Amino acid sequence: MGSTHISQLTVHDATLRDGQHAVQHQLDVPQLRAYAVAASAAGVPVVEVGHGNGLGASSRQIGYARLDDTTMLETVRNALTAGTSRMGVFMVPGWGTGADIRQAADCGADVVRIAAHCTEANVTRRHLGIVRELGLEAQAVLLMSHMTSAERLAEECRRAAEYGAHAVGIMDSAGHYLPADVTERIGAIVAAVDVPVIFHGHNNLSMAVANSIAAVEAGARCIDACARGFGAGAGNTSLEVLVAVLHRSGHETGIDLPTLLRAADIAHDLLMAGPPVIDSVSLASGLAGVFSGFKPRVLAAARAAGVDPLRVFAELGRRQVVAGQEDLIDEVVRSLKVAS
Amino acid sequence: MGSTHISQLTVHDATLRDGQHAVQHQLDVPQLRAYAVAASAAGVPVVEVGHGNGLGASSRQIGYARLDDTTMLETVRNALTAGTSRMGVFMVPGWGTGADIRQAADCGADVVRIAAHCTEANVTRRHLGIVRELGLEAQAVLLMSHMTSAERLAEECRRAAEYGAHAVGIMDSAGHYLPADVTERIGAIVAAVDVPVIFHGHNNLSMAVANSIAAVEAGARCIDACARGFGAGAGNTSLEVLVAVLHRSGHETGIDLPTLLRAADIAHDLLMAGPPVIDSVSLASGLAGVFSGFKPRVLAAARAAGVDPLRVFAELGRRQVVAGQEDLIDEVVRSLKVAS
Repeated sequence: MGSTHISQLTVHDATLRDGQHAVQHQLDVPQLRAYAVAASAAGVPVVEVGHGNGLGASSRQIGYARLDDTTMLETVRNALTAGTSRMGVFMVPGWGTGADIRQAADCGADVVRIAAHCTEANVTRRHLGIVRELGLEAQAVLLMSHMTSAERLAEECRRAAEYGAHAVGIMDSAGHYLPADVTERIGAIVAAVDVPVIFHGHNNLSMAVANSIAAVEAGARCIDACARGFGAGAGNTSLEVLVAVLHRSGHETGIDLPTLLRAADIAHDLLMAGPPVIDSVSLASGLAGVFSGFKPRVLAAARAAGVDPLRVFAELGRRQVVAGQEDLIDEVVRSLKVAS
Repeated sequence: MGSTHISQLTVHDATLRDGQHAVQHQLDVPQLRAYAVAASAAGVPVVEVGHGNGLGASSRQIGYARLDDTTMLETVRNALTAGTSRMGVFMVPGWGTGADIRQAADCGADVVRIAAHCTEANVTRRHLGIVRELGLEAQAVLLMSHMTSAERLAEECRRAAEYGAHAVGIMDSAGHYLPADVTERIGAIVAAVDVPVIFHGHNNLSMAVANSIAAVEAGARCIDACARGFGAGAGNTSLEVLVAVLHRSGHETGIDLPTLLRAADIAHDLLMAGPPVIDSVSLASGLAGVFSGFKPRVLAAARAAGVDPLRVFAELGRRQVVAGQEDLIDEVVRSLKVAS
């Protein structure tokens, strides 16, 4: 590993972005403000905010957010302590555009993540360029990363770094990894690039924290997490558990744990209906390698048709569906209903 | 490892015993029956039942169970499929006696676990002898095992095996371990004994499944778990997640996962108010290394006195309290109240 843009281990707090999936993107101004103030008080270095699917994604197909991007960003910007916490945003090209990035920059975003399916880093190129031109930190992340090999992920990350990403990495969008999977993939990526490597876990197999620690031990320098694991389905990596375990394992985060526990309590009390749970559906979804965000639609469609949702997940996994292909849910449900 | 009493990896289902802590030992006959039938249908090899603290523990100090031991055991005995699922019981000498073991044998218990604090295997000797005389499987487990070294645990387990235990092992009663801790301790025990080694995890640091896998990889042959993690505080190892991950990692359990998911749904719907959550208090308790079962009493005493429960856990950890020393909670709360 050569020079790095980020010098110490960075915990990237996705509570107010990825957590939105668990509440259909309905977080309101007082909720965003209360959590952002609390996270910043704990010294969380990056607070990400937005629609669960990122800038520009609020729509009939994906689901409308309660607030527009500008309102979300300005609320969090004003709630963060300058010099302590930077503001992050997330964007999937296609849902968001260059104009969304410029608007986010105007609202004070510091870190802009451009996401692509795990084999499609090339689609991040133009937007990474825009982020760099704006003088912001440009990050590239690969979604559904269990669907390809360590070698391919390393190659895709190398390409994103060539496009100018200041940090690159992978998301376990389906919560499918076990620690050895993470060790192999992060290790390959760390060997291929000279920028900090990002890991983002989900908890379908109860491995989100263990996988994140495996990522750090394999050389990752930026780990995503959400307060109380707030997120779709089985949830994300628990921010406060991650920080506690990192500290105990000798890794510095710059975060004050007791204060972070208060932020997590605020997240629990104000943001969520209840903490994420690894129920049978989330477990089946993780085993099948299906994007966690599919859960509500799968349950609704399966229930309406009288089909076992666990069979729907298994079939979606067999068809290797990717995030964005929600339309296939109805087709799979129909095919299983006909077959039964 | 040489000859073993149990030939394949045994998943030991503690839902109807350790889970009782989460409902103040109030499980009733229909609940016990419904879950035991469902677990047995899935092929769970051992179903443990009883008061959360084991045979004979129902009392004013520890908390009265809804049912007496005989009723609990007869209910589960009649619900299990013979030849598929054996019935387990748990006993801490002092709370239970030889008479309780004989009564359990009369009710059809197959596996009897005798538990002791991690440095006190010698107190299991007489009761292990009684279990063996009755022709039942005798197991010895060491509680709060993070409080001593791998070498000492190996020595205590070696001693229990000499007393005639057919299997020996450790409980992470406080949910304090990280996987490397488990690897070291189970490795040392496996090297010291020639009977199957048991591991029992708790999820305070979100590591229960990861720790259980580490235990298996270090040679453990019997792993405890509870449906949906049902248990005190942050809960136990999730049975269905454990089985899914074991199967994916190439380990045989003899359990049918889809049927087990239905049993887990039954546990969720019928046994628990809600699934266990790693809240700030459970996280602090695990970090401090305090027995998970203390949580309700700590919260009640701290609330009554207006003292921060996280400080109570830290102080209990500093004082190295062990399970059974619940009386110290009030003393610590008083000392913190006076000091503040």
